[in-house]
Amino acid sequence: MPEPTPVPMSATLAADEAMARRRRAGEEVLSMTSGEIGLPVHPALAERLAAAVGDNAYGPVAGSKALREAAAGYWGRRGLGTDPGLVVAGPGSKPLLFALLLAVGGDVVVPVPSWVSYAAQARLAGARPVAVPILTGQGGVPAPERLREAVAGARAAGQDPRCVVVTVPDNPTGTVASPDTVRRLAAVCRDLDLVIISDEIYRDLVYDASAPAESPALHAPERTVVTTGLTKSLALGGWRTGVARLPDGDLGRALHSRLVSIASQIWSSPTAPVQRAAAYAFGEPPEITEHIAACRRLHETVVCAVADRFAAAGAVLAPVRATSYLYPDFEPLRERLARRHGIHHGEALARCLSERHGLGVLPASAFGESRHVLRLRAATSRLYGDADEQRRAALAASDPLELPWIRAAVDRIGTVLTGLSETGVAPDPQS
Amino acid sequence: MPEPTPVPMSATLAADEAMARRRRAGEEVLSMTSGEIGLPVHPALAERLAAAVGDNAYGPVAGSKALREAAAGYWGRRGLGTDPGLVVAGPGSKPLLFALLLAVGGDVVVPVPSWVSYAAQARLAGARPVAVPILTGQGGVPAPERLREAVAGARAAGQDPRCVVVTVPDNPTGTVASPDTVRRLAAVCRDLDLVIISDEIYRDLVYDASAPAESPALHAPERTVVTTGLTKSLALGGWRTGVARLPDGDLGRALHSRLVSIASQIWSSPTAPVQRAAAYAFGEPPEITEHIAACRRLHETVVCAVADRFAAAGAVLAPVRATSYLYPDFEPLRERLARRHGIHHGEALARCLSERHGLGVLPASAFGESRHVLRLRAATSRLYGDADEQRRAALAASDPLELPWIRAAVDRIGTVLTGLSETGVAPDPQS
Repeated sequence: MPEPTPVPMSATLAADEAMARRRRAGEEVLSMTSGEIGLPVHPALAERLAAAVGDNAYGPVAGSKALREAAAGYWGRRGLGTDPGLVVAGPGSKPLLFALLLAVGGDVVVPVPSWVSYAAQARLAGARPVAVPILTGQGGVPAPERLREAVAGARAAGQDPRCVVVTVPDNPTGTVASPDTVRRLAAVCRDLDLVIISDEIYRDLVYDASAPAESPALHAPERTVVTTGLTKSLALGGWRTGVARLPDGDLGRALHSRLVSIASQIWSSPTAPVQRAAAYAFGEPPEITEHIAACRRLHETVVCAVADRFAAAGAVLAPVRATSYLYPDFEPLRERLARRHGIHHGEALARCLSERHGLGVLPASAFGESRHVLRLRAATSRLYGDADEQRRAALAASDPLELPWIRAAVDRIGTVLTGLSETGVAPDPQS
Repeated sequence: MPEPTPVPMSATLAADEAMARRRRAGEEVLSMTSGEIGLPVHPALAERLAAAVGDNAYGPVAGSKALREAAAGYWGRRGLGTDPGLVVAGPGSKPLLFALLLAVGGDVVVPVPSWVSYAAQARLAGARPVAVPILTGQGGVPAPERLREAVAGARAAGQDPRCVVVTVPDNPTGTVASPDTVRRLAAVCRDLDLVIISDEIYRDLVYDASAPAESPALHAPERTVVTTGLTKSLALGGWRTGVARLPDGDLGRALHSRLVSIASQIWSSPTAPVQRAAAYAFGEPPEITEHIAACRRLHETVVCAVADRFAAAGAVLAPVRATSYLYPDFEPLRERLARRHGIHHGEALARCLSERHGLGVLPASAFGESRHVLRLRAATSRLYGDADEQRRAALAASDPLELPWIRAAVDRIGTVLTGLSETGVAPDPQS
């Protein structure tokens, strides 16, 4: 008999709702809690969705042929030839990830740190997460040799890990595992007979085009499932659209069939009108590609400016190479934070920044790390403005840091952090 | 360690996709397999969705305030006063039902027959379904005294049933449990401390306004969760929108909190643009109420005409009082079907009608009944036409049975059934 799983509310969504409530109450808060991208819908996609409002049939469980073909083309252009018959679309990549855990069965290896929902989903699926640390500066992928040890240990202890979830590029660290690490991970997974579920939703948000993210599907094609969506690259979180690419071969076909069955019982099919717009987006017409490039440049400029403020205050962090996330470590300031502010762990640090200074950030414990560490995740994609007009200006600006509202946000972050690290009491930025 | 649950593809969606393939291949099939409503989107809703295409933020996990307030008003007008804070919206009522099973935990009582996904969802949630037969002619609600016995037996055998799923009005039978049965069910559930999950998605499709469906929430308000959506009343299956109403009180608040947490980890939030249109629909402006009334009349006219054909051929069935489903029993023809057609069970009968005569129907076994019984479920909501123009004409017609395409479909059903019951070989309706 299953007990109701004591699963927590998604930390990002919970914190985001809390920030929204404070904002509605008149507080001047800077929300850096969730990975929601605060940018407008591209007009070409809005147009496609508006043209599809008459689509009210369920359509195929796995999504329309047009969407599956477009997603296959998207992957094909990235070196991953894809059979549209092995693509499954869903209402977001999140439900696809959950259904994949049910389809694979067994326990689930998750990197530490990693996105808030992997471990929670594993528990909801009745599995026990097996936590494996990353290599420094290479988030999203369990250190391959640590993975080997952890799986051997878990198996010896009676657990049954059958898959590992990886995030390339990574949330929460904003880093990208190196091709060598990904290759070694793939080899270990083959040795251990583990399915790899590769969450590549940030793939198009790697800043340096000459060093793209490496998919494990290149190295272990027979056992790697890839998921992505339009939430991050095109700011379409509220449209709820994602796709999964199942591996070719016997394992992939069996997983595909189980995934479609599970989808048919949990959500029926992806929202039909959204599918039409998503198919257009995955087709990557020039205006969409250019728009994503502009978004990427904006993310890079702002997240790096904010990372500089954290570094200037004495936190250490790996260079941010993708996404709009940074993951600073205040360990060098541990003694000072304890003495001057009574802050002894990451949760207290996040609470101080969020509640006292209105800078909404999440502690590393939300991502599976020990409560003790002084690491935080900050997401900068909500700093582009409160209204679409500001957000469009941010996208169009040659230097978005010169826009007064972005400049003010970055300055405020710098002021709060400097105050935190230097003085007994940080100045109140609202005074 | 959870094994991958060997859950079958949703029988309705699988059969629907098979019928669509045959149709594309040029076969003249009549699809009566799925409960999809073949009617166009109301223009007022299409307009609202088109106006909301810029909504790309996640928004609250439980759905927008506007949608939750509109749904609360909808229930309030039906005698179920509702706190919008206890409403949770999701991408269809199907995922809400699944998440509710996870939130309640334990094993799940399902009526027999019942909708294909309840038992499958219970298995996906790690629960074992406890099957309890309905009272004749009162589908969707387990016979109250049988429920009492079954739960006692299950508990004695080590199972842990904690909730019962009911469907009022019912899919697959098209009947509506009487107020007395619902009241007795509620009393038994209180005695046994069972949560009632009442799927009321067909509530607005009861033909006789003087005999509305009775919700168990009237009789066991402290333990009844009600779900509904716009898939059936407004033909919006492809839009994926549903709402759940949690009971007031300690149990309801605990379930609400667990449901929202689970939703946050599985699907984040309902599709934002759809929420705006759904809020408008649940507000029940006159044009929407009139549209639903017109749909309801059309369903009644066509399903009753088809039910007459089944009865004329010798099948027995309870009077259809709601929905667009009928559930005929060919038991009186058992000997004849066996002798003349070699048909010994419901699956063979459904196969004969589907494969040989192009009348897509589902056997009772898809709804949890024994393979042996000669019952079928037929859904008539796809007979209104292939194109929106025909479908609009069907809605507007004073007698839809006079429209040539509907007349032809009903006649073809009658011819096939008469042939099946009277002669050695049914005539081929396509010759």
